[in-house]
Amino acid sequence: MKKSNNIKTPKGFLFSTAEAAIKKPGRRDIALIFSEVPSEITGTFTTNTVKAAPVRICMQKIKNGIGQAIVVNSGNANACTGKQGIKDANAIISNIAKQLKISSALIYPCSTGVIGMPMPVQRILPAAKILADNLGSNSFEDIAGAIMTTDTFPKITSRRLKVDGKAGTISGICKGAGMIAPNMATMLCFIITDIAIEPKTMTSMLKKSVMKSFNRITIDGDMSTNDTVLFMANGMLGNKPVNHLSGSFSLLQKALDEITYELSRLVVKDGEGATKFVEVIIKNAGSESDAEKAAFAIANSSLVKTAIYGNDANWGRIMAALGHSGARFNEGKTDIYFNNIKVVKNGIANNKDKEATEALKAKDLKITVDFHAGRSSAKVLTCDLTEAYIRINAEYRT
Amino acid sequence: MKKSNNIKTPKGFLFSTAEAAIKKPGRRDIALIFSEVPSEITGTFTTNTVKAAPVRICMQKIKNGIGQAIVVNSGNANACTGKQGIKDANAIISNIAKQLKISSALIYPCSTGVIGMPMPVQRILPAAKILADNLGSNSFEDIAGAIMTTDTFPKITSRRLKVDGKAGTISGICKGAGMIAPNMATMLCFIITDIAIEPKTMTSMLKKSVMKSFNRITIDGDMSTNDTVLFMANGMLGNKPVNHLSGSFSLLQKALDEITYELSRLVVKDGEGATKFVEVIIKNAGSESDAEKAAFAIANSSLVKTAIYGNDANWGRIMAALGHSGARFNEGKTDIYFNNIKVVKNGIANNKDKEATEALKAKDLKITVDFHAGRSSAKVLTCDLTEAYIRINAEYRT
Repeated sequence: MKKSNNIKTPKGFLFSTAEAAIKKPGRRDIALIFSEVPSEITGTFTTNTVKAAPVRICMQKIKNGIGQAIVVNSGNANACTGKQGIKDANAIISNIAKQLKISSALIYPCSTGVIGMPMPVQRILPAAKILADNLGSNSFEDIAGAIMTTDTFPKITSRRLKVDGKAGTISGICKGAGMIAPNMATMLCFIITDIAIEPKTMTSMLKKSVMKSFNRITIDGDMSTNDTVLFMANGMLGNKPVNHLSGSFSLLQKALDEITYELSRLVVKDGEGATKFVEVIIKNAGSESDAEKAAFAIANSSLVKTAIYGNDANWGRIMAALGHSGARFNEGKTDIYFNNIKVVKNGIANNKDKEATEALKAKDLKITVDFHAGRSSAKVLTCDLTEAYIRINAEYRT
Repeated sequence: MKKSNNIKTPKGFLFSTAEAAIKKPGRRDIALIFSEVPSEITGTFTTNTVKAAPVRICMQKIKNGIGQAIVVNSGNANACTGKQGIKDANAIISNIAKQLKISSALIYPCSTGVIGMPMPVQRILPAAKILADNLGSNSFEDIAGAIMTTDTFPKITSRRLKVDGKAGTISGICKGAGMIAPNMATMLCFIITDIAIEPKTMTSMLKKSVMKSFNRITIDGDMSTNDTVLFMANGMLGNKPVNHLSGSFSLLQKALDEITYELSRLVVKDGEGATKFVEVIIKNAGSESDAEKAAFAIANSSLVKTAIYGNDANWGRIMAALGHSGARFNEGKTDIYFNNIKVVKNGIANNKDKEATEALKAKDLKITVDFHAGRSSAKVLTCDLTEAYIRINAEYRT
C-alpha cells in the first residue's frame, strides 16, 4: 500500500487510479476515493444553471448526508449530455458499487473536461474494475494528479490537530487552472478527514471556508458547469462528533479555512498561462459588498491583468475598473498601492510609477485600494493574463 | 480647403488638426470640429463613476444644449487628474475661444489616452492657435485619424437624406479599439448634421440609436472613464426643425441608427488584436433583458473568444456562459448555431462539430442561440481574443 511521503492523510481512506483513455490514452484519468466506513458528507456546487450530470446526481444524493466513495474522471465533463449523461454516470456508479460491494447510493460521481461529448462508458466500465481491485495502491497525491486537466502541478495540502486528545488529520486536493470564477469553487476539490463532525456543523463550516477561499478567486471570470467541493468525515478518529460548542470547533474551522485557502491559492498560482500571482485587497470600504465588488472588478479586468503581465504600473486601469464595479466610493479619497508603494493618493498620481514598475517585476504582487470610507475589507486572488492563456484555450480541444 | 473625396460632410462644418506632441511627437494628436453657427448639441457619456475631467465638463455644458466647437486630443485622457485636470481643460478651451472669437461656453473638450497623467498644457496651447488658424484645411476623415490611439484605421460614415425637399447630410466618426464594453459607447464618437432637429427629439433619437449600437458591443468587458458620443446639428440646411411628428422623422432616425451601428461595427472589426468579427444573436428569449444578458455573457467570455480564435467549435463554453449569464432559459430547449450550422439541438450535441469547425475559419462569424422561450431577441457584436490583444495591452504605456 503506497502512501505519500509528504502528505499525511486521514485514517480509513484508500485511493486508486486507472487509465480509461477517456480523452486520449497514456495517462491515469479516473480515480477512486474510498472510506472503509460510510462517512458524513457535505458539499458546495456550481451556481451555473447549466449543471453537468454528475453535479445533478451529487446535489440529489448529498441531501442524505452520507457517502463512502467518490469516483472522479478527467477528460470529459459529462455536461450538456442530456438524459444519456445521467444514465452514463449511474452506469459507472453501479459498476463500481458492484465491485466494492456497497450501495450505489454511497458513491458520488465527479467529472471534468470537455463539455458536450458523450461519456465513453465502454472504456470506463473496465477501468472501474481496476479501480476497485487496486484500492490502496495509490496515494491521495496520485488522485490529485489524475484529476488534472490543464493544471501544471497537483494541488494537495493537509493539517493535523488534536481532538479529544487524539491526533486527527484533515487533507484536501483540488484541480483548477481555467474557468475559475466567483461564486464557485475550483472545478473539483475533495477534502477528507477522520475527525467525526456533526452534519449541520460540517455543512456550515464548509460554507464559511469556501466563502473566503474558492469564492474569492478568479482567473478569467468564467464559471464552470462542473464545479464541486466535497467534504467527507469518516469519524475513524473515534472522537465525540465536533459541533459548534466543542472545544476543538475553532481549531477545526481554522484548519479547514487554511486548507481551502491554500488550495485556492494554488489554483490561482497555476492559473492558465499565469506568470504572476496577484492579491487584490480592498481596505476601509463602506460595506463588505462594496469591497468584494471592487476587488472582483480589478481582478477580472483584462486590461489590469495584461498591464501586470507587462510590468506596467498602469493604475489608471485600476481606477477605471473601480469606477464600473458598482462599489460606492469617493474617487478623491481613494489611495492605491502596488505592494507598499503608494501610486495614487486622493485619487490622483503620487508620482511613484518608477518605483511601482520595479515592484511589478516580482512574481508576487499585492494591489491594495484604500477607500477611507468605512471598516470593511475583502481580498480576491488572481493572476496576470498572458499570451499563453490564449494559446492554451485556443488549442484546448483541437 | 481640403475635403474628403469619399465622405460627404454636412454644410457649415470646418475641421483642423495639429501636432501637440501630447504623448510623443510625430503625429497629429489634437483636432477641432467647428460649426460656422452655434448648433444644437446632445450627447451620451460613460456610466463609469470615475469620469475624466473633459467628460465632467461636457456633461455640465450639454445641459444648455448649445455648442459650436469640439476640441479633442489623443495621447492623454485627462482622467484621475483631480482639480488640475478641470483647470487644464478649461485653459485649453479658453485659449481656443479667444482664437475663434466665440464664447468658451460653446466649446466641448474630449480626451482619450493614458489615465492619470497631467495634461501637457504648455505644448497644447500653441497647438490651439494652429487649430484656429488652419480651420478648414482638414477633412472630417483627418479628424478621425487624429483621434486614433490603438485603432488601426480611421472610422467614418455618412448618410444623405431629403428633408423638406432639401438634401441634408449626417456624418459620424469614432475611435475605439480597446476598453469597449456594455453601457457605453465607443470611447469617442462625433456625429454632425446640417439638418435642423428639435432638441428633445434629437436627444431621444441619439439615445435610441446608441442603445442598439454602441451599447451592444464589447471587446474586453472593461469600461472607459472617457466614453463620449456628441451629436451636433447646426440647422444650416434651413429645414423646419425635425420633431417626432415630422414626415422625415423616421428616415432621420434610420440614418442615425445606420451611422451608429456602422461605426460600432467598425470599432469591433478593429478590436485590439482581433482576427475575427462575431455577431452574437439571441432569438426567442422570454424577455429582451434575458436576451441581452445571454448575448453579453457569450460575447464577454474569454473562453468563448479564445475558442473562436483557435477555430474550435467548442459550444460547451457557450452553454457554460449562458448558464452563468443570469438569463432565464431551459437548457433542454436551447439550440445553438455557428452561422447556419446547428451544433446544439435541445441542449445537447447535434454532431456537426466538423462542419462548424470549417465555418469558423471565416473572418466573420454568427453565433445564434435560440431559446424557444418567447419572442424577444438581442444582438451583440464582439471579436475574438488573441495573443496580439495581450501584447498591445501589456505594452501600451511602456
